[in-house]
Amino acid sequence: MRRALRLARRGMNTTTPNPRVGCVLVAPDGTLVGEGWHERAGGPHAEIGALHQAGNRARGATAVVTLEPCAHHGKTPPCADALIAAGVTRVVYGMRDPNPLVAGKGLAKLAAAGIEVVGPVLEAECRALNPGFIRRMTAHRPAFFLKTAATLDGRIALANGMSRWITGEAARRDVHRWRARCCAVLTGIGTVLADDPQLTVRHRPTRRRPIRIVLDSRLLIPESAQLLCDHEAPTWVITSDTADSEKIARLTQMGCTVHCLPTTANGRIDLHALARWLAEQSLNEVLVEAGATLASAFLKNSLVDRWLHYLAPKAFGGDAYPLFPAWELTAVAAAPKWRIDRVRRLGDDLSLELVEPGNDCDEPHRAAP
Amino acid sequence: MRRALRLARRGMNTTTPNPRVGCVLVAPDGTLVGEGWHERAGGPHAEIGALHQAGNRARGATAVVTLEPCAHHGKTPPCADALIAAGVTRVVYGMRDPNPLVAGKGLAKLAAAGIEVVGPVLEAECRALNPGFIRRMTAHRPAFFLKTAATLDGRIALANGMSRWITGEAARRDVHRWRARCCAVLTGIGTVLADDPQLTVRHRPTRRRPIRIVLDSRLLIPESAQLLCDHEAPTWVITSDTADSEKIARLTQMGCTVHCLPTTANGRIDLHALARWLAEQSLNEVLVEAGATLASAFLKNSLVDRWLHYLAPKAFGGDAYPLFPAWELTAVAAAPKWRIDRVRRLGDDLSLELVEPGNDCDEPHRAAP
Repeated sequence: MRRALRLARRGMNTTTPNPRVGCVLVAPDGTLVGEGWHERAGGPHAEIGALHQAGNRARGATAVVTLEPCAHHGKTPPCADALIAAGVTRVVYGMRDPNPLVAGKGLAKLAAAGIEVVGPVLEAECRALNPGFIRRMTAHRPAFFLKTAATLDGRIALANGMSRWITGEAARRDVHRWRARCCAVLTGIGTVLADDPQLTVRHRPTRRRPIRIVLDSRLLIPESAQLLCDHEAPTWVITSDTADSEKIARLTQMGCTVHCLPTTANGRIDLHALARWLAEQSLNEVLVEAGATLASAFLKNSLVDRWLHYLAPKAFGGDAYPLFPAWELTAVAAAPKWRIDRVRRLGDDLSLELVEPGNDCDEPHRAAP
Repeated sequence: MRRALRLARRGMNTTTPNPRVGCVLVAPDGTLVGEGWHERAGGPHAEIGALHQAGNRARGATAVVTLEPCAHHGKTPPCADALIAAGVTRVVYGMRDPNPLVAGKGLAKLAAAGIEVVGPVLEAECRALNPGFIRRMTAHRPAFFLKTAATLDGRIALANGMSRWITGEAARRDVHRWRARCCAVLTGIGTVLADDPQLTVRHRPTRRRPIRIVLDSRLLIPESAQLLCDHEAPTWVITSDTADSEKIARLTQMGCTVHCLPTTANGRIDLHALARWLAEQSLNEVLVEAGATLASAFLKNSLVDRWLHYLAPKAFGGDAYPLFPAWELTAVAAAPKWRIDRVRRLGDDLSLELVEPGNDCDEPHRAAP
């Protein structure tokens, strides 16, 4: 299964909207006879790649696959049927299909054909491959990864607005690794107005260009913004029904997708409506790179599946821009609390990966199999 | 030498004002024939303990000692003489005596007696045993360890002043480990007025009670403060010449030591004068547990040898109390920057140990031996 997990990770940046899946075929004598991984939607599933490599040697073999083989006709025929036809006698799976409508059907089909079915095996690791796909199948929203960078004293810019650079190059490159795996990079109009960012994947090879999404309820985006003009990746602007329709038309003409969504009482885009709509667009993972207000809103709405905090061993002082706006907390116990899942050193800085306790989609399902 | 380092650490909480030193004696056939460590001032030095244990087996042996053996008569006779008299033929040392007035004299005495002298060996580790002693000998001030605890967004209390508890029990216990090794725990009058702390060593056995020091230039300390009334450890109040002499007399009567030091233009105790005076009192290591203003002053004066920052995976929001006051920085490059020397997980929290680049007394001297 560890080998299958490694294979699956080869599809980290490319399988969307499909899940990352890896498969190995092992002969009864322990010989590895085939391996496969899913590369992109429309292309062969991991099992098919492994069966193709094994040929006749698949007969009597064990298939080890990170995700329950599919039983339905999608863009490709069902993998369960292919495993049965190839004469595989045992299937070890990492996790069941997260789509509650089809979960277990692939395993049932295999078992009905007399194949021994074993699993789940290394379920937590297999689930961690696909937080976005799982979140979309079970909660009809993407997984959101929130990226922030701050000093030890929790500051994201000096009082005069200067913020380049808080973290060193290693941390900034790490952000591009996250961008590359995500379907979209999302920001707020405040960041666009302040920094005019590109939000493209740089510093690493990539075949798929994540969509750039700007939340802009009052449609304030300047038509000269790099996001609109550079044509380096698709750009979606999310605005409200009250937005100027002529400006919408001009942005659309420029190649931008403009979509109107409901707003909350304070005039901002409703993040839950946004999340549903992004899932409808088949987005699995979205990296949120936003300022204090939007980052705070995602956290307060419990929409952050993984908070990536880059911590620079510096301090800016109490007059510098804070990481979050005022929260008006009155009790320490009421303060939001996270679990530190991972700590890494990146150059001079630290990378912290935090998850909200009880909101961790990497946790294995506790439901009966 | 690693064994000698471990032995030396047994004196972590007790040797002050002397350095922590460990010694092992190894016979020519590799047998360990003696080991010793310095426990407290006035007691035997590490070498003497090891020689005592070895007896006649010291003849022809190698002495491995973390610090250059002394050549001068202090409270005990010179260790160099004792090693010579015992017939030791080789001395491996970890670092030279940090006191520039005596450095090398012990080694020279050994060499003059025909003993082979080898070193420095594992110098960085040996220096790290005694940051305070080294700082006092070379810079005539103690080593200051600054302790802070904050949320991810750099907050030390809610807007209403509540701060208990930011970090969990493991982090809070770790602070007592630092208190136990230090000669004194230092705070500002602001913290005394806000929290009425005890600043004693709890949660761990200790024979030596660190002195509690309060910086209080206007002598505002209430006579009901726990620090003054509990008699759990000595308390020193540092004030200015302008302080009320009657109140000084009353505090002295209560058992408290009151000392007047110069103030800076803003009326606060001059920290450099304080540092010199604390060294004159033979203090090696001082733990600073202070609020935003005093912590900031120690950092800005480059007086922090090790910054212990406890980071809780929580956030309080932008209206909460900041870790530092306004610094009015105008360029990111001008922001103070530290090197992360160590990161540990303590329960749910992180402990970061930071050092100021170029101000690290653990660094080996680069001077010629």
